[in-house]
Amino acid sequence: MWPNTALLDLLGINHPIIQAPMAGATTPALAAAVSNAGGLGSLGCAFMSPERTGEEIAKTMMATNRSINVNFFVHEPPKDDAERNAAAKDQLQPYFDEYNLGDMPDVVPTNFPFDEAMMEVMLELRPRVVSFHFGLPAGHMVEALKQVGIVVLSSATTVREAIILADGGVDAVIAQGWEAGGHRGTFASTMDAARVGTMALVPQIVDAVNLPVIAAGGIADGRGIAAAFALGAAGVQPGTAFLTTEEAATPAVYRKALLEAKDEDTRLTRAFSGRPARGLSNRYIEEMAERQDELPEFPLMNTVTAPLRKASVEAGSPDFVALWSGQAMSLNRSGNAGELLEKMVEESLAIMNG
Amino acid sequence: MWPNTALLDLLGINHPIIQAPMAGATTPALAAAVSNAGGLGSLGCAFMSPERTGEEIAKTMMATNRSINVNFFVHEPPKDDAERNAAAKDQLQPYFDEYNLGDMPDVVPTNFPFDEAMMEVMLELRPRVVSFHFGLPAGHMVEALKQVGIVVLSSATTVREAIILADGGVDAVIAQGWEAGGHRGTFASTMDAARVGTMALVPQIVDAVNLPVIAAGGIADGRGIAAAFALGAAGVQPGTAFLTTEEAATPAVYRKALLEAKDEDTRLTRAFSGRPARGLSNRYIEEMAERQDELPEFPLMNTVTAPLRKASVEAGSPDFVALWSGQAMSLNRSGNAGELLEKMVEESLAIMNG
Repeated sequence: MWPNTALLDLLGINHPIIQAPMAGATTPALAAAVSNAGGLGSLGCAFMSPERTGEEIAKTMMATNRSINVNFFVHEPPKDDAERNAAAKDQLQPYFDEYNLGDMPDVVPTNFPFDEAMMEVMLELRPRVVSFHFGLPAGHMVEALKQVGIVVLSSATTVREAIILADGGVDAVIAQGWEAGGHRGTFASTMDAARVGTMALVPQIVDAVNLPVIAAGGIADGRGIAAAFALGAAGVQPGTAFLTTEEAATPAVYRKALLEAKDEDTRLTRAFSGRPARGLSNRYIEEMAERQDELPEFPLMNTVTAPLRKASVEAGSPDFVALWSGQAMSLNRSGNAGELLEKMVEESLAIMNG
Repeated sequence: MWPNTALLDLLGINHPIIQAPMAGATTPALAAAVSNAGGLGSLGCAFMSPERTGEEIAKTMMATNRSINVNFFVHEPPKDDAERNAAAKDQLQPYFDEYNLGDMPDVVPTNFPFDEAMMEVMLELRPRVVSFHFGLPAGHMVEALKQVGIVVLSSATTVREAIILADGGVDAVIAQGWEAGGHRGTFASTMDAARVGTMALVPQIVDAVNLPVIAAGGIADGRGIAAAFALGAAGVQPGTAFLTTEEAATPAVYRKALLEAKDEDTRLTRAFSGRPARGLSNRYIEEMAERQDELPEFPLMNTVTAPLRKASVEAGSPDFVALWSGQAMSLNRSGNAGELLEKMVEESLAIMNG
């Protein structure tokens, strides 16, 4: 049995393992497979329109009648900054030329933050869980979600952020440690301060908030799951581990890179999206390392780099793909997501039950 | 019972908890208290002469007949670099003036690497364990230590380094995660690569080497210890947790800072010693952040900053003290070291034995 069952009733699941909502890599098939195996499957909807989000949720709900989680990014609208736009053009146009992609696209925001239209989709489709990254939307939105019985989660990268989220009404806090792949959820601490490893972060957040804590970062198999529970977590949210499952929308070149990578191969970069995120180092990350701070803000860069990322995938080259990955990727396995979840459960319970 | 007992016979201890050898903060009383409580007490002898090292070991052996660990730094001799020396003068002289310390001392190496004279002390006094930081000394020295029955340990910050240490003949590998306080043990990977959190590092090293693995970084109470064993470690090496015990040589201003600090308060700096080390941010770390890369190599800076660090302690100010700390310092407790070790044992066994 799980040593901490606080999340099971709250989320309506059998096993306190949440497949992380990795925008761009999740699919209805992935989320449904995890939920059907007793965990919590997630859809990363950060870069989807309300219409597309509704379609993805509906597809997932057709494939499972269990709880699912839908994730959004929340952030201030980026500033339009001519100097930063020019820096992007200066740094990226040569890559566009290399791939015969013509002119770099103009810098215009195109992602969909969590707005009233998205709220309507949530209130209509009512996924069991809605989670946020980079903080929380306006208080009345959090309230409206909770009023219809939706469980609200968000990520903290420091104790300070966990306390802000608890005060903001979340039902549980995701403690995102330094090891985690993809975007750092940091929203209130400085990026220099918010580099706390999972081993240190989880118990300090457990001590600071009176809510269930979900550990994320560096957790890829039963050993990491059992470790998280020892630290006082009520659940875990592995992400990278699911990227090499059959159901994930991970391009072949990205899968190959993950399965060959080593613990020391990740770097933080803001060159892909405008916000720091952890991925496998590649040509783009290396070449942008020195001047990345000059680039436009999140999520402007995400739009700018989209054609390059796509062309790189199509060329079968990892050079310009955002190979988001946590630091424990060498523990990754292939296979299907439901089987992976079952293995994680077996392995961790075997450790915890001696 | 401990789920992994590989270290107990190897090190001659009852509990697989090693008090980290923190140069400058350890004392014979601290090491003896930990060893007498069944753990492995350590002396950090990195900046001591062979004579002083012998005296410290003798004092510790008078206070305990249990195993003890003696730790050394190993590193290439630093280059004498006029430009770097000038940068140090330029950046630090104002601080020397502020404390009325006269001229900044000339940049001359004064620490004692692990040489033949130190070997003689080891072979004469024969501590049960000798551990190294920044790699290993020459192969014939490792051999000579092992031939008289001394157990040899060293720290790895990546899987690559763990494999090098295993090939170099260590009896167990210390996996030093990103969270750890004090000097990063990195010796073969780049500093940018060697930022792997404990949660990710430990299982990947466990899978890569056929030796007991000792987890370090972010471990401060029974939760962290139980988590490390879940990850596959055979032991743990907490450091910061012992800095606020009565027996540690931690100045009052440093103790106060540790007991008030929060998870997000540490930074890496090379401005104190010349090598990156994790400590609580203070005025010196902040003001040196931008230009620290210009400073002389390790351990030259350690000598240069010594008068400043001393004066700051004497003035009761944290501004120029090297407040080495890991990221879990808010879990620190006061009291004596033997009691802390007993609490750690009780807490972790309670978690692991359900």
